Amino acid sequence: MKKTKPIKAVAAKGNTKRAVQVLEQLQQALPGCVACDDESRFRASLDNLRLSFLPDAVVTVEKPEDVGVVLKLAHANGIAVTPRGAGSSATGSAVPVAGGWALDLTKLNSVRIDPVARMVTVGPGAVTADVQAKVEARGLFFPPDPSSKKYSTIGGNIACNAGGMRCVKYGVTRDYVLGLEGYLADGSFVRWGAPLKKYVSGLNLKDLWIGSEGTLGVITSATLKLIAKPEKRWTGMFAFKSESKALQAVVGMLKAGVQPSICEFLDCQSVGCAETYTGKPIFEGYSGSSILLIEVDGTPAEVRRQRKELLDFMEDRALAYREARKESDAEQLWKVRRTCSQSMFSLADTKLNEDVVVPLNKQAELIRYTRQLKQEIGLATPTFGHAGDGNLHVHIMYNRGNKSDARKAKAGIKKLMQKVVDLGGVITGEHGIGLAKIPFMGMQHNPAELDAMLAVKKALDPKGILNPGKIFEPFEVWDHTPVQVKLPWDHR
Amino acid sequence: MKKTKPIKAVAAKGNTKRAVQVLEQLQQALPGCVACDDESRFRASLDNLRLSFLPDAVVTVEKPEDVGVVLKLAHANGIAVTPRGAGSSATGSAVPVAGGWALDLTKLNSVRIDPVARMVTVGPGAVTADVQAKVEARGLFFPPDPSSKKYSTIGGNIACNAGGMRCVKYGVTRDYVLGLEGYLADGSFVRWGAPLKKYVSGLNLKDLWIGSEGTLGVITSATLKLIAKPEKRWTGMFAFKSESKALQAVVGMLKAGVQPSICEFLDCQSVGCAETYTGKPIFEGYSGSSILLIEVDGTPAEVRRQRKELLDFMEDRALAYREARKESDAEQLWKVRRTCSQSMFSLADTKLNEDVVVPLNKQAELIRYTRQLKQEIGLATPTFGHAGDGNLHVHIMYNRGNKSDARKAKAGIKKLMQKVVDLGGVITGEHGIGLAKIPFMGMQHNPAELDAMLAVKKALDPKGILNPGKIFEPFEVWDHTPVQVKLPWDHR
Repeated sequence: MKKTKPIKAVAAKGNTKRAVQVLEQLQQALPGCVACDDESRFRASLDNLRLSFLPDAVVTVEKPEDVGVVLKLAHANGIAVTPRGAGSSATGSAVPVAGGWALDLTKLNSVRIDPVARMVTVGPGAVTADVQAKVEARGLFFPPDPSSKKYSTIGGNIACNAGGMRCVKYGVTRDYVLGLEGYLADGSFVRWGAPLKKYVSGLNLKDLWIGSEGTLGVITSATLKLIAKPEKRWTGMFAFKSESKALQAVVGMLKAGVQPSICEFLDCQSVGCAETYTGKPIFEGYSGSSILLIEVDGTPAEVRRQRKELLDFMEDRALAYREARKESDAEQLWKVRRTCSQSMFSLADTKLNEDVVVPLNKQAELIRYTRQLKQEIGLATPTFGHAGDGNLHVHIMYNRGNKSDARKAKAGIKKLMQKVVDLGGVITGEHGIGLAKIPFMGMQHNPAELDAMLAVKKALDPKGILNPGKIFEPFEVWDHTPVQVKLPWDHR
Repeated sequence: MKKTKPIKAVAAKGNTKRAVQVLEQLQQALPGCVACDDESRFRASLDNLRLSFLPDAVVTVEKPEDVGVVLKLAHANGIAVTPRGAGSSATGSAVPVAGGWALDLTKLNSVRIDPVARMVTVGPGAVTADVQAKVEARGLFFPPDPSSKKYSTIGGNIACNAGGMRCVKYGVTRDYVLGLEGYLADGSFVRWGAPLKKYVSGLNLKDLWIGSEGTLGVITSATLKLIAKPEKRWTGMFAFKSESKALQAVVGMLKAGVQPSICEFLDCQSVGCAETYTGKPIFEGYSGSSILLIEVDGTPAEVRRQRKELLDFMEDRALAYREARKESDAEQLWKVRRTCSQSMFSLADTKLNEDVVVPLNKQAELIRYTRQLKQEIGLATPTFGHAGDGNLHVHIMYNRGNKSDARKAKAGIKKLMQKVVDLGGVITGEHGIGLAKIPFMGMQHNPAELDAMLAVKKALDPKGILNPGKIFEPFEVWDHTPVQVKLPWDHR
């Protein structure tokens, strides 16, 4: 196929006469919804990637139809539109890199539960944890749980096909989306799928929208599948002599038929960070071990059976274990994982978090590679993640002010991505491409695949106004300086 | 958006000089794979819709790369290519309506199981039931079970996103497809997704291909997710005083938290057919009742608990019940459903089978409508189906030779489809659009939706060579006479 030609965003830039006129039209069409002050524009200029590109205006819509109004105007005038929720994207998906209008969807946060059909219909601005709490109060369960769930919105989860810890048993966000409503780039209203359990009419643009990071359309409503809330959970934490022993145990456990609801791996570097930070070993006498945190859930009888199977299986494999029989005890175990994450900042001030995926039986090789990479680039590479899915978060820690370290970090990420692809893996399992992973698209996809994706993008957004700059256009995060800002989810 | 303009297939027609030259090139490129005899062409000219359109040639590929060879030649010369497996499509998806080449994929039938990752990688020509048997021998389970499973191929299942009886608990084919390999219209090799549990890189063309009925690309390999084989099943058959009582029981049961693996409904007309055919009532003393067939599965303890919950729930609701504690007893119960299906031919020689879906709480209204329709058109409308999904198969029985009946049947289908859409349902839950449902696309989808689908089709198949005539172009099955032919799955 022909060589990929990137779409160029054709946004009318901020201070041209035409752009000002169009903005006035928008203000008239949606009075009270358009903010042009510096603070609003700055807040909508960035996400968790912390690169800031100011939009000309922030449009905070109040009802779904407003999105159609915004897009009709934007489409007619070639204005870039960047949809956003909480802005917790790790890759820059919500950064209005081409200026234009930031489209804030957080007010579209309705939640309607249908307990018979086991579905919930939500606005894109509904916060994940709020939706989860509401359905759990009805005995139902929405499993996808990205670590940002206290802040992240369902619209963002769908735009990035968010994952989390429970995917090993329950799958990812995509697996729960039955129907979407929203608007095409030109402001036309569309519905993809429906609040129905089966649907095979026409091309499946629902799943094409899911994970497309707002580049193909804007979601204004989603109907999600719910399941019965598990009655009981049990959590166990196991220490291993080495990372390969821990990862072998994961493979063996799954092969033996144990079905964990969560299976989190912590490498020795991560455990070391936490132990240095707290000043005590996680497992007394086994300092610097590799750790698995495993949850099983289900009926009390199932949980009892699975706990026994798991403990029998781990008997000869783990050095030591601790278990939580109550939810409150479990919290103590989960704290270990959070401490690992937070304590990494004692190594350096900046953390690159790469959500790669490799086949289950290649995880030990990937960990060996992170150790090799640590030697090669001289930067710490603590790694933890969802070992039941092969989805490991490899971190590279560096000091932002140190240009040599930054160069090493940049080179390290590139090497890591190539290794992941060589192992038959994928460069992103839950964060998406956004801006940060654009340079690696050519490692993951052949030219025909990239051309096909771009052809689809052009078919649905011929003027390139929807979230321009993402996925398809060249971008290099290292050419830009992140802003220093405290975001709601920052612990430091 | 602009009015939808259908793609016109530009196939070089059979006996032009150019078409003959290209066919000779194909024969040279793939010696022994190209058949032009009348019998081969006739066999590849139809599917279970039984409309016959002869292809110029049948290409039976022997390895995945052959598909690339076929498509490169076809693309360069504007030859229509219609991929096919077993030809069990109910809607004409596999009919080479524009002539050109029929692409037979049945020899690509490899099956490779990965028990650790719980995945199986198959060729598109692997037969569904064979794949199921092979994975079950390893203690694993591939749940999607279209009624054609003894014949239908995985490629066809994916092309139509096949369903079946177990979807109420286990979901549809799409839910099990992790990665696809295949070829674009121009013969370029592509991979969408991967044999990995998480994957969010780039646009999701994997799920766009699934259910696209061979109009966007040709699958040469699929990696499917497997789950643990349920240890035990239990089947119960319940008689109800009326259809609405049966369907209320379905809603109530799901609301109460019973999680059946199968929940099949038979209306009174269907039951009447079977009872007339066999000459005895299904439930002694309750002739002409409506019936639910329910299966639960899981561990022995789960099955025991669910059986008890279900029998308690049905106590005051059902007139009578029978249960199967062994697999062999279950077969007797399932025979009832098959008898209903087969015995409908005692009413008339032709059966239209419409796989519509409505919200769970609208099924009783749909059944009332099928009775009303029976009065209006004077043709029987026996209905059964997957009531746990709202996916009911409404049948209209008529005699093909009777022109008046045929007109009434045609009008009846149209009214039925409008009613389904009015109830918030979808015109197809598992068969797809193919040729048969094209006239109803405009009821289901608004012009913007149709335009967006067509734009995507044109983006990925600009010359319109892939399975032309399906989904997007005008077609009316009633203008064509079905052929009289005995297909492998015909019982009569």
